[in-house]
Amino acid sequence: MAKRKKLSGFPEWLPEEKLIEQYFIDKIRQKFELYGFSPLEPRSVEPLDVLLSKGDDKEIYLLNRLHSEKQAEFGLHFDMTVPFARFVEQNRGQLIFPFKRYQIQKAWRGERPQEGRYREFYQADIDVVAENSLDISYDAELPRIILELFAELPVPTFSLKINNRKILSGFYQALGITDTTATLRILDKLDKIGKDAVLKLLIEELAIEPNIAQECLNLAMIKTPDSSFYKKVKDFGYDNELLNQGLDELKFVMDSLSDVKADVYADLSIARGLDYYTGTVFESELAGYERLGSVCSGGRYENLVGDDKLKLPGIGISIGLTRILGPLFKEKRLSANRKTPIAVLVALVSNETKAQANKTANSLRSRNIPTEVYHKAQNYGKQIRAAERKGIAYICFYDPKDANKHEIKDIRTGEQFPIDINTWLLPEADSKITVSLLK
Amino acid sequence: MAKRKKLSGFPEWLPEEKLIEQYFIDKIRQKFELYGFSPLEPRSVEPLDVLLSKGDDKEIYLLNRLHSEKQAEFGLHFDMTVPFARFVEQNRGQLIFPFKRYQIQKAWRGERPQEGRYREFYQADIDVVAENSLDISYDAELPRIILELFAELPVPTFSLKINNRKILSGFYQALGITDTTATLRILDKLDKIGKDAVLKLLIEELAIEPNIAQECLNLAMIKTPDSSFYKKVKDFGYDNELLNQGLDELKFVMDSLSDVKADVYADLSIARGLDYYTGTVFESELAGYERLGSVCSGGRYENLVGDDKLKLPGIGISIGLTRILGPLFKEKRLSANRKTPIAVLVALVSNETKAQANKTANSLRSRNIPTEVYHKAQNYGKQIRAAERKGIAYICFYDPKDANKHEIKDIRTGEQFPIDINTWLLPEADSKITVSLLK
Repeated sequence: MAKRKKLSGFPEWLPEEKLIEQYFIDKIRQKFELYGFSPLEPRSVEPLDVLLSKGDDKEIYLLNRLHSEKQAEFGLHFDMTVPFARFVEQNRGQLIFPFKRYQIQKAWRGERPQEGRYREFYQADIDVVAENSLDISYDAELPRIILELFAELPVPTFSLKINNRKILSGFYQALGITDTTATLRILDKLDKIGKDAVLKLLIEELAIEPNIAQECLNLAMIKTPDSSFYKKVKDFGYDNELLNQGLDELKFVMDSLSDVKADVYADLSIARGLDYYTGTVFESELAGYERLGSVCSGGRYENLVGDDKLKLPGIGISIGLTRILGPLFKEKRLSANRKTPIAVLVALVSNETKAQANKTANSLRSRNIPTEVYHKAQNYGKQIRAAERKGIAYICFYDPKDANKHEIKDIRTGEQFPIDINTWLLPEADSKITVSLLK
Repeated sequence: MAKRKKLSGFPEWLPEEKLIEQYFIDKIRQKFELYGFSPLEPRSVEPLDVLLSKGDDKEIYLLNRLHSEKQAEFGLHFDMTVPFARFVEQNRGQLIFPFKRYQIQKAWRGERPQEGRYREFYQADIDVVAENSLDISYDAELPRIILELFAELPVPTFSLKINNRKILSGFYQALGITDTTATLRILDKLDKIGKDAVLKLLIEELAIEPNIAQECLNLAMIKTPDSSFYKKVKDFGYDNELLNQGLDELKFVMDSLSDVKADVYADLSIARGLDYYTGTVFESELAGYERLGSVCSGGRYENLVGDDKLKLPGIGISIGLTRILGPLFKEKRLSANRKTPIAVLVALVSNETKAQANKTANSLRSRNIPTEVYHKAQNYGKQIRAAERKGIAYICFYDPKDANKHEIKDIRTGEQFPIDINTWLLPEADSKITVSLLK
């Protein structure tokens, strides 16, 4: 094979990076399970009509069998929510509601690759779906879990912004704006295109009076770390049922989170592009990585699942794992306590004593210590350097003349000491992979 | 959305089944890491020429962007080995050899679905690749790991069959057969089509003399639980360098495994269809599920990776996880100690005491006990039955009048007792998910 180029948009991590990704996935999964979410992993493909009903169709990868004349009937999913909604529909009778599930899987989008945007990427989602109505307490539980999780992950400071679509729609209604969805979509661009451009679009595209358009902008400017947004909106003096409902809901969420020590804001500029959100919406960013856009987003959807006979309202939030890890790997900001699962390398004294080396390794393995036997009988210096290069912390020596004698060297400190091979344990700090963020 | 049919060949597990799959994946991963394998997860897609160089092209799923006129340039991988080989080629300078990696990922094949054959499925692979030459000890290490792993997994009795391609090729050469590859391919069908059909094919398709063809069959009939195959083959009286080399290698592997208490055989009928194997080959089956074919297979490949300047010989073995789980799920033979990650449900006394319920739950969570608060203030009987239906073992009651009083009920036994919410721990047996095989 000739030397190949990388495929743009399809990131691949080196083994030491994959080890860190695995650490993140494990941490995320533990947190989700701790809060009562069950694992779920729908298939990677969906029928075309399911994908088209919710997605931007240009981003979809169709699947065709090679040499097949048949039109593609399905494609790869582009998020976790659409397959989840379809799964819930299809298996409703076998699920118990409220159904809390997490899903950590890859998704695919045929977008133009750029920093933070990939064609293949990991997402980690939690959703709750209930029958008929979904308690507002979940709107507060999800951000609590996410804030607790991000506080424990080795990432730059995470800040979460929460809004409620009802506030925006109700406010626009109160202003006499008829096309609230189109208004939402334009306001959603505020971050990207700025105030003036948003005003211009509102006035020119939707024929909204300049003073009304300005009022929409004024609302979007409100951002508070607590429930004080409530009074600010009330002070505008508009009265609208949907608006009031949204204000109450967002106030409930913010009040519920008042004991959480984290950067969390009521931010009335947040709209979320996706059409299916109907209430609470979430966006977030990492300090210093605002250019990536939101790394964890979601919201409440009343009509994505279910039908006229039975409503299945839900709320969910999705972590863009690859979006977070991509730049952190590139900048080498994540450091693990070791670069490999292997904790101990058993030095090979001679090919004739390989059985003794294996026995030594198996003693360590019997106490769950990941161990490898060096593949070649070289001088110890070479074996120690090889262990160092691999990122292995300990090297173990056996005595070919005495099966009961063993020594361990901590390669990082140079310290070497005799051990009982049948009882020695890794120090606590080395017993599992830990990852830290470098400044 | 209307009620949808399942997509044939794309299995989806219910949450309680996914929990069991996750248990298997965790166990497999732990074992692989224990033996010094690093995680790797190449992208899911490969350029078409990479896929075509090693696969049956009818099985490949191409990826096309919707509305795109462009010819597909890549497709989904159909195994773990081909992407691994490409990854090693591409990142050779950043890897340390011998490179031991594991890969637990989904693969896709456009085959006609049937029991044991899926279009989307999990594989769990380990491979070792070295520079220039790969020590024979790995040919013994891989089956040792696999046998140890399967002995610990809740599956029917696993038996491993080992052969060496050099024995077959060398034996055929000694018989004067020129097209050893074609002969191998026909012999590989022995299991499926039987002796007579194999004889017929050898004689008619390859124009092999009947007595020579019979000798090929005689070799394939040899199956021993130890190294006694060695003498049986020697007794045929053929002398050939490749044959002798294969015999020595297989003898080494079988001798190395003599202390392993498991069903392992030298089985000279094993050829493995794939072309890239050059030495040791593995196949296996589960007792009672022989109809599924091999659930774990692999072998040594000298020429899959590398080029004329630098050879990168490898050996690998792949577990067909979905193939194993599919029928076991269907027959409901796998049972977990609980059907959900949730260990404790906190009963909700009243909506007014939800904060106390959450505090109770958080106390438990602070000691890593997966906990959920019931979503509705119903009578205790209903909440207990809901917990039971969900498969939750414990329900916790708080006292709305005394924040320090809590009781736990083991729903399975009916036993109820007061606990200190700040110190109570799950009994060992409930502290993690365990899965057992039902008769």
